[in-house]
Amino acid sequence: MKHISWQERYDLPETYTFVCKLADKASMLANVITAISQTGAQIGEIGTFGADDACKYRDITVHCTEEQVKAISDNLGKIDGAEVLELIDETMETHRGGPIDIVSRCKIESLTDLRMIYTPGVAKACLEIQKNPETAWDWTGIGNRVAIVTDGTAVLGLGDIGVVPSMPVMEGKSAIFAEFTGISAVPILIDSNDPDTIVETVCNIAPSFGAIQLEDISAPACFEIEDKLRARLNIPVFHDDQHGTATVSLAALINGLKQVGKKPQDCKCLMLGTGAAGYAITKILLDFGIKDVVLFDTGGALYDGRTAKMNPYKQKLAEISNKDKLQCEFKDAFTDMDIFIGVARPNMVTKEMIAKMNKGAIALPLSNPIGEITIQDALAAGAAIAADGRAINNALAYPALFRGALDAKATAITTAMQIAAAEKLAELAPGGELLPDILDMNVHMEVAKAVELCWLNSQK
Amino acid sequence: MKHISWQERYDLPETYTFVCKLADKASMLANVITAISQTGAQIGEIGTFGADDACKYRDITVHCTEEQVKAISDNLGKIDGAEVLELIDETMETHRGGPIDIVSRCKIESLTDLRMIYTPGVAKACLEIQKNPETAWDWTGIGNRVAIVTDGTAVLGLGDIGVVPSMPVMEGKSAIFAEFTGISAVPILIDSNDPDTIVETVCNIAPSFGAIQLEDISAPACFEIEDKLRARLNIPVFHDDQHGTATVSLAALINGLKQVGKKPQDCKCLMLGTGAAGYAITKILLDFGIKDVVLFDTGGALYDGRTAKMNPYKQKLAEISNKDKLQCEFKDAFTDMDIFIGVARPNMVTKEMIAKMNKGAIALPLSNPIGEITIQDALAAGAAIAADGRAINNALAYPALFRGALDAKATAITTAMQIAAAEKLAELAPGGELLPDILDMNVHMEVAKAVELCWLNSQK
Repeated sequence: MKHISWQERYDLPETYTFVCKLADKASMLANVITAISQTGAQIGEIGTFGADDACKYRDITVHCTEEQVKAISDNLGKIDGAEVLELIDETMETHRGGPIDIVSRCKIESLTDLRMIYTPGVAKACLEIQKNPETAWDWTGIGNRVAIVTDGTAVLGLGDIGVVPSMPVMEGKSAIFAEFTGISAVPILIDSNDPDTIVETVCNIAPSFGAIQLEDISAPACFEIEDKLRARLNIPVFHDDQHGTATVSLAALINGLKQVGKKPQDCKCLMLGTGAAGYAITKILLDFGIKDVVLFDTGGALYDGRTAKMNPYKQKLAEISNKDKLQCEFKDAFTDMDIFIGVARPNMVTKEMIAKMNKGAIALPLSNPIGEITIQDALAAGAAIAADGRAINNALAYPALFRGALDAKATAITTAMQIAAAEKLAELAPGGELLPDILDMNVHMEVAKAVELCWLNSQK
Repeated sequence: MKHISWQERYDLPETYTFVCKLADKASMLANVITAISQTGAQIGEIGTFGADDACKYRDITVHCTEEQVKAISDNLGKIDGAEVLELIDETMETHRGGPIDIVSRCKIESLTDLRMIYTPGVAKACLEIQKNPETAWDWTGIGNRVAIVTDGTAVLGLGDIGVVPSMPVMEGKSAIFAEFTGISAVPILIDSNDPDTIVETVCNIAPSFGAIQLEDISAPACFEIEDKLRARLNIPVFHDDQHGTATVSLAALINGLKQVGKKPQDCKCLMLGTGAAGYAITKILLDFGIKDVVLFDTGGALYDGRTAKMNPYKQKLAEISNKDKLQCEFKDAFTDMDIFIGVARPNMVTKEMIAKMNKGAIALPLSNPIGEITIQDALAAGAAIAADGRAINNALAYPALFRGALDAKATAITTAMQIAAAEKLAELAPGGELLPDILDMNVHMEVAKAVELCWLNSQK
């Protein structure tokens, strides 16, 4: 059974718009399109934004690589009467000025409006909250507001790029929060890499928010920060790189195991990477009932008793994983494995390794943007199912997990809530797919409801 | 010359909507309207949202006090066939769930959209900022984002009500920022009253913002916090209760002095209150050229050498004000004064006191929501001009001051920028008024431009 996820069918490269002035000649547009297509680029929309006696002005949107952009420009330069007025990098334009805005839901068009939203009317809401503190979620937006907190030390696959350069990621997540589940998420960049400073700062501003999302903070600091914040705050604290990834991975595995006809308690999982995602995926897989997980990192196999390249969080993992204390080389660890998950670095896994796995193997090489092995190679080597970071997208989980938690006024996002989200995601996937369509708003609402119910039931 | 500001003509009390079921009878609506009007309430919009064979369903919006609401309910109860289904407090409804939202300016309707706003496309913006840090204002919203920071210790005239109950004020200010000048302002509640903790916390999150607005923090902590933040951060830090109030007060005085035909250098000002607003107004008045300011507080007249009820900030004020070291009682200090400004507590000033002032006196009793003396009493006692906190509204200044500062990429909002804003506000007031219409968006844009130009010229 070969599986190509729906995401891959739309795996477009970057998007550019060529703003062109084209002389009014027979076959001009055809020549231009040919010049673009010859480079292998895909043509998207073609618009016309002006015309005069001698020419037309057109926007031509093209999906292509940076190299193809140069080739297209060269090709167009050779067409008599065609001129590129401007080349727009649509990805960068999406981030110009940041993609999010704070807006007022109330128009302020009269003094009555102003006197209700601000002094003197606003005092009434303040006094009501002072008298009945639990009404703060009625008379403010705190209950719909999430802080996205980062120190910029583990941004995407780029590493420690600094806190200000990480802002586009935080703003992108905020835009997704807003579009998918109507949550107001505020990017908070913290100008320190010291875990205690980050904890103190977040605690000091926590009354402003209904939940905290930690984001792109490197391991093991991220574990310490999350543990300390969870102990001190009575609102959900959720490190997306850990639990978002773990939730979506579990959802994909639930469907993957169903497709290959295996039960979790019969399956062993090989994991490459003991960072944020490795830690959380291992824990959720064991909670879900997977038989054993064997983790590898730059210190080799992780087992209880290893002394090199350890930290307290790896020690915790060592105590719950690798029950047989396997200590072979990584390349030899694939034998007898049902699942491989990579959360480490590109191109660490060969076809030969995948070929050693059990029949009906599932490979999730999640390193971003380039996986530990390509989907094509994993399938060619005999994996029954393979999906990478493009399919296992956190944005399938975190908006709904927070929506459900906020709607339930939950004080935490528990493992049970994550498993509920994963099961609902698995259920909503169309037949043959591992995961549902990320752009289907109904999916996010259904998952949020499942998460909310899970919390409410746990409180009965 | 008696002056009633335009604001007072619209000085409506609270707004309620009576949702009514009214039997279809002749004169029913007339009877209902009479029953409401008899209480002295003013009727606003009347809407119909449904009808059946026997009755009509109407929303009747009424501007009235809480006492009048009760009287209206009683009166309507006596009308046969009239039933109040629901009574909506429109002020509270404005604050339900908070009046602000974070929204995405980009629709996420395709995987191409998602891949540009989030991974993998977003990495391009991150790397560009890492390479050229100064482009952070191009590729993120940092340059349009302001933190509204409070510890909830001096909220409106309500005092230290706690930090969460202050949220509606912060959200109201944010809504005004958004509506008047398109700035995204994030309410940040700080769970500490310790100045150093507040300073550290704000410094730690400062990379997220283009400017910091301090709000409703009690004196003298607010001075210390602002001084320390200004020393450490290279973005504008602006305590609105100080400088917003000072800017709008100066604007009103510029026009007031013109109307009474006096020059600043000939005028003495009596100030009641040495808190945040008193401190900042005194400084801007002296910078603007007012001859002298004499301040009073619970320790009596402030003068260089006073030892009771002092703090370092009052000492600074004492050194620049009260040149003659006046030490009389407050009631006797009005003699020979041209301007009275109250930033203390309601009803502290009598007609007799105002009557002692020079001819062409200007009275600004700004205590909120009830002034040190009513406008009516001040005018009756002989003041040429009087305006209170309803007219001297900070929202005339802070949105434009921040807009101008952000547009100029200014590292501070200077006194010169505040004076430029005050002069522009004064210039834009219609003839005979002290201040322009706060709902005129053009006013905010013009003031912002003046502020931006002031900074840019100072950098030449």
